[in-house]
Amino acid sequence: MDLKALAKANPDHWSKATAIRALTLDAVAAANSGHSGMPMGMADVATVLFEKHLKFDASAPNWPDRDRFILSAGHGSMLLYSLLHLVGDVQFPLEELKNFRQAGARTAGHPENFLADAIETTTGPLGQGLANSVGFAMAEEMQRAQYGRKVVDHYTYVIAGDGCLMEGVSQEAITLAGRHKLGKLIVMWDNNNITIDGTVELSDRTDQVSRFKSAGWQVLEIDGHNPEEIDAALTQAKKGSKPTMIACKTHIALGHAAQDTSKGHGALTDPEQLQAAKAAYGWTTGPFEIPADVKLAWEEIGKRGAAEHAEWQTRIEAISNTKRAQFERAYALDAPKKLSATIKAFKKQMSESAPKLATRASSEKVLEVVNPIMPETVGGSADLTGSNNTKTGDLGVFDVDNRKGRYVYWGIREHGMSSAMNGMVLHGGIRPYGGTFMCFTDYARPAMRLAALMQVPTVFVMTHDSIGLGEDGPTHQPVEHLAISRATPNTYVFRPADTIETAEAWEIALTSKSTPSVLSLTRQGLPTVRTEHKNKNLTAQGAYVLAEAVGKRQVILIATGSEVEVALKAREALQADGIGTRVVSMPCMELFAEQDEAYRRRVLPAGSAVRIGIEAAVRQGWDQWLLGERGRANKADFVGMDRFGASAPAEELFEKFGITAETVVAKAKVLL
Amino acid sequence: MDLKALAKANPDHWSKATAIRALTLDAVAAANSGHSGMPMGMADVATVLFEKHLKFDASAPNWPDRDRFILSAGHGSMLLYSLLHLVGDVQFPLEELKNFRQAGARTAGHPENFLADAIETTTGPLGQGLANSVGFAMAEEMQRAQYGRKVVDHYTYVIAGDGCLMEGVSQEAITLAGRHKLGKLIVMWDNNNITIDGTVELSDRTDQVSRFKSAGWQVLEIDGHNPEEIDAALTQAKKGSKPTMIACKTHIALGHAAQDTSKGHGALTDPEQLQAAKAAYGWTTGPFEIPADVKLAWEEIGKRGAAEHAEWQTRIEAISNTKRAQFERAYALDAPKKLSATIKAFKKQMSESAPKLATRASSEKVLEVVNPIMPETVGGSADLTGSNNTKTGDLGVFDVDNRKGRYVYWGIREHGMSSAMNGMVLHGGIRPYGGTFMCFTDYARPAMRLAALMQVPTVFVMTHDSIGLGEDGPTHQPVEHLAISRATPNTYVFRPADTIETAEAWEIALTSKSTPSVLSLTRQGLPTVRTEHKNKNLTAQGAYVLAEAVGKRQVILIATGSEVEVALKAREALQADGIGTRVVSMPCMELFAEQDEAYRRRVLPAGSAVRIGIEAAVRQGWDQWLLGERGRANKADFVGMDRFGASAPAEELFEKFGITAETVVAKAKVLL
Repeated sequence: MDLKALAKANPDHWSKATAIRALTLDAVAAANSGHSGMPMGMADVATVLFEKHLKFDASAPNWPDRDRFILSAGHGSMLLYSLLHLVGDVQFPLEELKNFRQAGARTAGHPENFLADAIETTTGPLGQGLANSVGFAMAEEMQRAQYGRKVVDHYTYVIAGDGCLMEGVSQEAITLAGRHKLGKLIVMWDNNNITIDGTVELSDRTDQVSRFKSAGWQVLEIDGHNPEEIDAALTQAKKGSKPTMIACKTHIALGHAAQDTSKGHGALTDPEQLQAAKAAYGWTTGPFEIPADVKLAWEEIGKRGAAEHAEWQTRIEAISNTKRAQFERAYALDAPKKLSATIKAFKKQMSESAPKLATRASSEKVLEVVNPIMPETVGGSADLTGSNNTKTGDLGVFDVDNRKGRYVYWGIREHGMSSAMNGMVLHGGIRPYGGTFMCFTDYARPAMRLAALMQVPTVFVMTHDSIGLGEDGPTHQPVEHLAISRATPNTYVFRPADTIETAEAWEIALTSKSTPSVLSLTRQGLPTVRTEHKNKNLTAQGAYVLAEAVGKRQVILIATGSEVEVALKAREALQADGIGTRVVSMPCMELFAEQDEAYRRRVLPAGSAVRIGIEAAVRQGWDQWLLGERGRANKADFVGMDRFGASAPAEELFEKFGITAETVVAKAKVLL
Repeated sequence: MDLKALAKANPDHWSKATAIRALTLDAVAAANSGHSGMPMGMADVATVLFEKHLKFDASAPNWPDRDRFILSAGHGSMLLYSLLHLVGDVQFPLEELKNFRQAGARTAGHPENFLADAIETTTGPLGQGLANSVGFAMAEEMQRAQYGRKVVDHYTYVIAGDGCLMEGVSQEAITLAGRHKLGKLIVMWDNNNITIDGTVELSDRTDQVSRFKSAGWQVLEIDGHNPEEIDAALTQAKKGSKPTMIACKTHIALGHAAQDTSKGHGALTDPEQLQAAKAAYGWTTGPFEIPADVKLAWEEIGKRGAAEHAEWQTRIEAISNTKRAQFERAYALDAPKKLSATIKAFKKQMSESAPKLATRASSEKVLEVVNPIMPETVGGSADLTGSNNTKTGDLGVFDVDNRKGRYVYWGIREHGMSSAMNGMVLHGGIRPYGGTFMCFTDYARPAMRLAALMQVPTVFVMTHDSIGLGEDGPTHQPVEHLAISRATPNTYVFRPADTIETAEAWEIALTSKSTPSVLSLTRQGLPTVRTEHKNKNLTAQGAYVLAEAVGKRQVILIATGSEVEVALKAREALQADGIGTRVVSMPCMELFAEQDEAYRRRVLPAGSAVRIGIEAAVRQGWDQWLLGERGRANKADFVGMDRFGASAPAEELFEKFGITAETVVAKAKVLL
């Protein structure tokens, strides 16, 4: 590249873009770690985007109607941090850049949404930002339909790299965006032809232009270092009803000795090469020094949206108080006041009628009373609507001609669905839930982890949660998936035993502000075990005594979900033999672990009682409730699965694998 | 559809295809469960494939040079079972079909490779079969290059549905196949425009033809009920150097009242509708009755390949004894005899030189001695070759012009890589290993589970296995991933402490015939802790006493991987204070659990010693080794992670999260 010609052609642009490149080189050198090449390659695109297109106000990074900027190629985090510093975001003083990748800094190795207001999402695991962006753009469409374009009218811009486009989730994302004509979604592909292992051709020769077109996108191809072409493409991208992909031909690590090589992807820290690159840019100031005029020009960009922001403020103040209150409530992730009363009334009715229902059907019943009072919920399923019981009558189907629809047919795309749901929460104003078979949490797993890490309360409705799935067999029968979700920090895993516990789990999930929830629900019918109505949400305590021992307590059975019924039957048999047996229902281990010790001791008292855990899943995660605690040992056993399931009718499988009251009774007697 | 016209146009074909449809209807009705529509829709395609193209010998389903037939749309399992019965596979008598989806039957809800020889792979989780098939086709290319086309020369045929094509992994698979010009891979897309939720358009409007072309495929479009078009397309598909996708326009549940509806996807059991469908086919025999002439015609098809098989047998007997022995050894998954001696010699050398190495680098050293003596190994990485240390000098790179290459640049496709590796093992003759960052086991997860379920010894090389990854931060730092793999049945999770244990882990992984291995390897350097050479593979016992207590044993420290060093330092400090401390290295919990109780008791004796587990990961899975056993309680604690990590230099993170010898010593003293 002839850098001098570039600089000469547009000196104002060049100096602004160079500021990004210089800050990147300096920060990576200071950290002796990081990824220099991507910010250096995409500096021109980002500069034009921020200068001429992105609607934002650096002094108000939470402005709800800002355009969203998502750095899907999260390893290039210094691009984002440089921009935020340059435009005057107060959370990104120079000190932050100097502390790049150091403990306590906002400038983490990859962008983390919970560290700074202007970081829209957490990226790094490739493809996730792109898949989030589909949710951002859907949320914008939904809210624009709901509140009008005076209140909601913004674009979602994404920078994605070759890695994002190779990950399978990108296909799920772009086909969803194309299907739903998310015309306000604009993806800028950093087409630099370099991955860590070498040139892209080593592993991929996809024609990305045709690929995106096949998914219903508008595709533009530009020189990613030509500001006029960038500007024209962004202008064009905003037109029409299709999402747009701009293929930006760039040079990774532009101007550095490592330009156009896979070495350029990583940390460029050699002092001489760094100086040579700066010299080639015509950049003469010291490390972390931005010429005052350049900084000023960038700060002007940061203020560009202030007037528009003020006008928006006037407009939102003009809408009805009710609408505005709802808008603000949803953005704050506050549940409506009447949710609590609604759940209580529902519980009362259900404990009286005591239906025998699969908990997936219980879940639908809960949603039938919740969705009408929570306009911010958006439901969906990865092509298992009838099985996941996720659709209620009032929602309407989200579609090109019905943006007010609150139900999404996600297709067979568990990963794309989950990532997009995370994006909806991050956008604000939406509380999404989505279903699939619990076994296919495997597909959704990268997004489920990020929900937990990002502290977003996405709800994963995972039905057919054990061998109770029956004939479809072991490929569809979860055995390790409860353990997997429970192993993940900041995740609530609910396995309700009946309709009442299902309602309680939903109440917690729908009021959570920073923790995702996994609802583990049965295919098969379960009796109502909570027939005595209590206003209190017992599930919120994680575990509680469902049935007390009669006589001396010799056995404590701890069970979840469909196995609570097994525990109750075993208790009957044991009591009939004069063995006092307590049954503890444990719908949420994480919440039980959060209770104070006094409560936990009341539910699971130390002593000589035999403990048996019952769950149609692997034992991993159970020993903390079964084995020794506080220096005392318990005689304990577990009834569950220690292998994969099998294809047969469900009742036969419970017999075959010994998850029965008879097994529980026999094990208890052995221990006694 | 005018069924009469179809029948009249080609009565021989029609009766054969109808046999599949009738058996499907009967089996699903008998099971009162299953998926009728797909086999009924694809019966014509499958009939032509089996009759005129598929190279197979029904009496020898394990013939190594057979064409592979993969039913990626696994819910349509009755298509496969019907075919296998019809062609005379002895494992599929009529009785099996009558027991469809019942306990103990080979005819599970979804095809399970371990239940019958002719079932090539386990499908059901959508997209997996298609992604496996890339590995099958790569294995064929590799072996054809290695042994010549007289011994290896076959096609891989796949039936995939809309669900397979919507899953992201399909994009990873088809771009890999296109990149590598896997010309002998032929995918028949069941283009029936129906998913469970409704028509495909509800969730997807992708132009699949352009999409596959953008990935470098030949695409043909046909009427999937016209035998001449099917035959011509299959003939054309076998030509040229590109993989081929045949878009077969079909009617789901052809001829049934539920034809062309999402209801047709499921179990069609209504007796009247079933009879009506059979009448429409002109099928007059009772349930499970095949007219003798039709069965005979099918059995002739089953014998069609016998002569070719015999000729092949002559050809393989003509190759050199050495080559043939190698071929057969690799297919039997037998390790070469000298592997054991090679590993022993390596261990001896390393225990003497005692290098300080990251275990990912130790792993590379092991591969350097193993790959030259195991021509069946195929290495690779999901674009992290230099970080995963998976490439050794002798492998060569697999490419269009180097089919003998044994290293695959998989690109940023963890899921596609893992599924393809499973396919390679299932094909036979190849022992694949592939690397990524351990955190991204999340992306590979659906394939890792299937490896365990399918009982294939794929090796997953997962490096950067803790907060030791450092500055890249929590998106890249696994904390729950050891627990996730350990929760999965039939999976060995190795977390070696040094070069010696790494070699031992590899030895087990490379000799395993039915269990996949996860190698959890560090980014950061570790000292050699096994400086005293032992021929015996101590890792095979799962855990062992690495350092014995001096004086009365008061503390047992149990650690894995990088935390063994922490344990040894803590032991030094405790011993200095006169506290006898044993250190147990536990590189593989699953293997330790498999040891007899006497051995386990020797390593972890019951008694009053305090136990502390140390692992830079979540505690889940540890309590079984720490808490009460055999009715005795242990004072126990755990030093590890109870939250996500952070972005900072690695050493600082171990301090920050308290994973240090100081913490261990302090906790031990509290418990004492």
